Amino acid sequence: MSMADKWNQTALLVIDMQNDFILEDGLMKVNGGKAIVPNVIKAVDIARQRGILVVWVVREHDPQGRDAELFRRHLYSPGNVGPTSKGSVGAELVDGLVIKEGDYKLVKTRFSAFFATHLHSFLRTEGIKSLVISGVQTPNCVRQTVFDAVALDYQPVTVIVDATAAATPDIHDANISDMKNIGVATPTLQEWCGSGA
Amino acid sequence: MSMADKWNQTALLVIDMQNDFILEDGLMKVNGGKAIVPNVIKAVDIARQRGILVVWVVREHDPQGRDAELFRRHLYSPGNVGPTSKGSVGAELVDGLVIKEGDYKLVKTRFSAFFATHLHSFLRTEGIKSLVISGVQTPNCVRQTVFDAVALDYQPVTVIVDATAAATPDIHDANISDMKNIGVATPTLQEWCGSGA
Repeated sequence: MSMADKWNQTALLVIDMQNDFILEDGLMKVNGGKAIVPNVIKAVDIARQRGILVVWVVREHDPQGRDAELFRRHLYSPGNVGPTSKGSVGAELVDGLVIKEGDYKLVKTRFSAFFATHLHSFLRTEGIKSLVISGVQTPNCVRQTVFDAVALDYQPVTVIVDATAAATPDIHDANISDMKNIGVATPTLQEWCGSGA
Repeated sequence: MSMADKWNQTALLVIDMQNDFILEDGLMKVNGGKAIVPNVIKAVDIARQRGILVVWVVREHDPQGRDAELFRRHLYSPGNVGPTSKGSVGAELVDGLVIKEGDYKLVKTRFSAFFATHLHSFLRTEGIKSLVISGVQTPNCVRQTVFDAVALDYQPVTVIVDATAAATPDIHDANISDMKNIGVATPTLQEWCGSGA
């Protein structure tokens, strides 16, 4: 299979790179988030050059929180803008990340991008067999999406270790190890740039 | 709500306590598995005393591995009995754990007990709102089931820390921390015995 064919069957998922998760005053700030923004931008650039489908996975919640997980529903109340409320500045992508024509935006309300969404059917229709993951945060939305991708038999599943982040390096590393143990590839951005898919 | 009402709305999931995961010569041995067998037995006893529904979640695979994840499919081949092959001794529950009348057995082929199974619809029909988790192993089947349970709005979701296990204590602890961070209760067996649900 040629590289071009391989890349046509690959999608890059960019997960939750929204102001509320990344900015200093974000409502759900992930400590390691800001540092990876340049690498996520670069991963998206590489994907575009290769013809890899870019999928922007974002949380957007009802302003009343009716579609949020029970354990975070208390964050939404009248007169209070909860995390990644639909239409809020917090729900927007961070500066430097831009959805372009041909990209796809996927809205989710739970950790995994596959949970109660049409992502799997969309990717199958597009002929996608392999996934590359970037974004935040490693133990939650990144990992849940990765484990579901493995369960759904995407192969290979790749997590770019320095284009993903968690609250602490320890949490990030422990989760990367667990993912390695189920056959997930975990290159650095530089390694990924130098390789196929 | 009385304790009895609360326990009627609770299920104990016992995950993958099968010979292949637990025994010294098991094909997929989890190092920490054997040590928790007595605590899992005790958790089941307590559940029965309280009237908590006991659900036995097990992996069972086609002997040819056609329903196994791609990354472990190489373990199944003609003349080779792969891990938890249907009908094999490795697929049976370890000694001391017995399915009794009124319990429920749920067969899965992926990490999460909810992934492509009827578990959620069954539990809803039974009026279950709260889950307690035991078994192996913490980073994979236990954690995936727990994250899906949170996503599905079961509440509370409880992981008994000394009735679950991983390859190493470090992996176990890191995963327990991540689960705590999404609102999961993590009592010891003794703490759970002394508390409601």
